[in-house]
Amino acid sequence: MSQVNIDTVITYLQSLQDKICDALEHADGRGKFMEDSWQREEGGGGRTRVLTNGTVIEQGGVNFSLVSGNKLPPSATAHRPELAGRTWKACGVSLVIHPNNPYIPTSHANVRFFVAEKEGEEPVWWFGGGFDLTPFYPFEEDVVHWHQTAADICAPFGDKVYDEHKQWCDEYFFLKHRNETRGVGGLFFDDLNCWDFDTCFNYIKAVGEGFIDAYVPIINKRKDTEYGEAERQFQLYRRGRYVEFNLVFDRGTLFGLQSGGRTESILMSMPPLARWQYNFTPEQGSSEALLYKRYLKPQDWLDKT
Amino acid sequence: MSQVNIDTVITYLQSLQDKICDALEHADGRGKFMEDSWQREEGGGGRTRVLTNGTVIEQGGVNFSLVSGNKLPPSATAHRPELAGRTWKACGVSLVIHPNNPYIPTSHANVRFFVAEKEGEEPVWWFGGGFDLTPFYPFEEDVVHWHQTAADICAPFGDKVYDEHKQWCDEYFFLKHRNETRGVGGLFFDDLNCWDFDTCFNYIKAVGEGFIDAYVPIINKRKDTEYGEAERQFQLYRRGRYVEFNLVFDRGTLFGLQSGGRTESILMSMPPLARWQYNFTPEQGSSEALLYKRYLKPQDWLDKT
Repeated sequence: MSQVNIDTVITYLQSLQDKICDALEHADGRGKFMEDSWQREEGGGGRTRVLTNGTVIEQGGVNFSLVSGNKLPPSATAHRPELAGRTWKACGVSLVIHPNNPYIPTSHANVRFFVAEKEGEEPVWWFGGGFDLTPFYPFEEDVVHWHQTAADICAPFGDKVYDEHKQWCDEYFFLKHRNETRGVGGLFFDDLNCWDFDTCFNYIKAVGEGFIDAYVPIINKRKDTEYGEAERQFQLYRRGRYVEFNLVFDRGTLFGLQSGGRTESILMSMPPLARWQYNFTPEQGSSEALLYKRYLKPQDWLDKT
Repeated sequence: MSQVNIDTVITYLQSLQDKICDALEHADGRGKFMEDSWQREEGGGGRTRVLTNGTVIEQGGVNFSLVSGNKLPPSATAHRPELAGRTWKACGVSLVIHPNNPYIPTSHANVRFFVAEKEGEEPVWWFGGGFDLTPFYPFEEDVVHWHQTAADICAPFGDKVYDEHKQWCDEYFFLKHRNETRGVGGLFFDDLNCWDFDTCFNYIKAVGEGFIDAYVPIINKRKDTEYGEAERQFQLYRRGRYVEFNLVFDRGTLFGLQSGGRTESILMSMPPLARWQYNFTPEQGSSEALLYKRYLKPQDWLDKT
């Protein structure tokens, strides 16, 4: 069995952050990520990278963080009593990109690793992550490309991996109070340790780097699409849903805020501008109505071709 | 002991909704509240009233709702086993006003009544409510006026009522992850049944109507204050905090969304437009810095005169 090694994961995640930032800067053409390095008193720290007012990216963050502690909170050990009395470390790369052009979807990706250790015992560890896409004016071919890339990433790891992590994504990114998905989904997984360490690690590498292949072609294809005030207003309105999901449902956001994480890094996922309008209903037959009718519900995207 | 009567409370709350809407329309001068009446399948319904694009009010809602059920959720009966097996009704008026002019604070008020009944037993009941103010560019005299009005409302009900409900408000409207209060506070109370029914009812009447006396003079005093793009941008930025509070902390919002309440009525509290900016820090010595330094922490406002 392959050796659990958090230092290799940390080194990899930092190089992944570099790689994603490079790819996004290149796609943007003008914007540059600014970096804030920070330390956490209780252990750990991070590199928060933010790009604002790019050609393509209105606001976006690609963050690396490492958090460690001597004791897990009761909420964590209640479900997993084997974790009690262990020191722990968690590290990850998390990103959200809010583009200017409403024809480019907002996107999110995350890969993370958790390990809890105790002298003389085997470490308890798992990986988590995924990526998901939130279009405002979707093109079916973009959504199929996004999911095909996801399926290609998963294929070497087993026949059912895409189906399972795609379904998990649909279930996780669901706004119950709106009865709609956050977008068209992608991949989501947590507690991943069903394979040996190296295989699990290879899978999150494939997901992290695969995000670039999934997203950048959509940016390039849609960045010159012309749009007007109506499309911009609808984008701002739909960004309100992104805020609702992240603040009401997203476990990572809530855990971060409640456990005294670095607020500015966690809330980097918030959009630069969002609006709310009472009882907005898109005009029947409009592109806006199509988003709700055809896209904001779980479905088999690879069956469309 | 005075008789518990929910019908009297409902009739009163609807007249309070009318009264507040009239006062706000008058203060606005142009905007009119539009009404949506709705029914709830599980019992109850409401009158949602929304004003948008007024002279003074950019977006605001004044909602009445009545909700009833045959069984309380386990979360409600865990703390109060005496409620198990009872039918219940809850009604209230709730409002949030987001003004155009950054010199007029955002304001919120709420009065509510809950009763759980069982044949042959005394009803279990309580009132709750309060009002709080969220300025962007505060004037000390406005804050003192707001709190003096609150203190005057409380005075007939006992020497300590203002102090207690003012402190409860400071504690409730606190953003832990920002280490700041939502605004300059006001009054907040829940589970109020320490006096007889009529006295408690009179207190929420005083709070509901007192909101008008607390807020309208501030609107009138500040509505013609000139402002520029910088003040507008700061207002939009600070409205982001309002969103954070309501979606992460506000019990009424979360309970409503989780229990299948009417989403559009509940999220009427969201601002028409809000923005987020990574690591924004106001310039030292600026009016924006003063908001954080002097206003967003609990303090005795009646000692300032």
